[in-house]
Amino acid sequence: MTAPTPNKASILLAHGSSDPNWLAPFETLLQRIRGELSDSARVELAYMELAQPTMEHSIQQLAEQGFQVIDVLPLFFAAGRHLRKDVPAMLEQQQQQLQHQGYDITLTLHPPIGLEPEMASAISQVVVRKLS
Amino acid sequence: MTAPTPNKASILLAHGSSDPNWLAPFETLLQRIRGELSDSARVELAYMELAQPTMEHSIQQLAEQGFQVIDVLPLFFAAGRHLRKDVPAMLEQQQQQLQHQGYDITLTLHPPIGLEPEMASAISQVVVRKLS
Repeated sequence: MTAPTPNKASILLAHGSSDPNWLAPFETLLQRIRGELSDSARVELAYMELAQPTMEHSIQQLAEQGFQVIDVLPLFFAAGRHLRKDVPAMLEQQQQQLQHQGYDITLTLHPPIGLEPEMASAISQVVVRKLS
Repeated sequence: MTAPTPNKASILLAHGSSDPNWLAPFETLLQRIRGELSDSARVELAYMELAQPTMEHSIQQLAEQGFQVIDVLPLFFAAGRHLRKDVPAMLEQQQQQLQHQGYDITLTLHPPIGLEPEMASAISQVVVRKLS
């Protein structure tokens, strides 16, 4: 590393799909979000399953680059089995692995963005526009 | 039926989950959307799999109630295998079944709402708010 990296990074976590058409809008969204955040903010896009990069891969890379606080923001509509069981288990296991590798790291899973008020408002706007 | 029903109905199609916590935000959203549409608009919420009511069940009910045009609006972020293959195949099969039952009905699958500009804007707003 040639420059000090900030301590905190974020991962936008999408479900993932084997269909590249499913992935494309998320890539576009990542570029938009990066453009709206300050240059020093580190944001990655990763997938829970079926696509690359995986969440585990992104976390490992960020740990190796010196990030110590990693926030995972799920781009999901709601929290079902994946966000209540699968992803927390993956994060807990990886946090332990990283600690065994000597990394002092904290992984935090946030609630799905679908539960935020902006999202309900946007979904409602789109549906009302399409049905009116 | 005691009153004439309008010809057209809409189904908000969510993926579905066996976890009722996943379903709850969609039910809330349906009530909000119904409140924002005119009283004569008929909108149902249905699930592709893992939850009730299923899309097929909702379509069958609407057909039996005299609706002849049914628009399916997927509450999905993007179109992968489900919206490119599974759901179109389900709709094609059901349209044929309904025609055999004597119903003159047109089922139309719309693109996922995740691809609409309001959604990209809302996701970006939420992420930037949470990360700033």
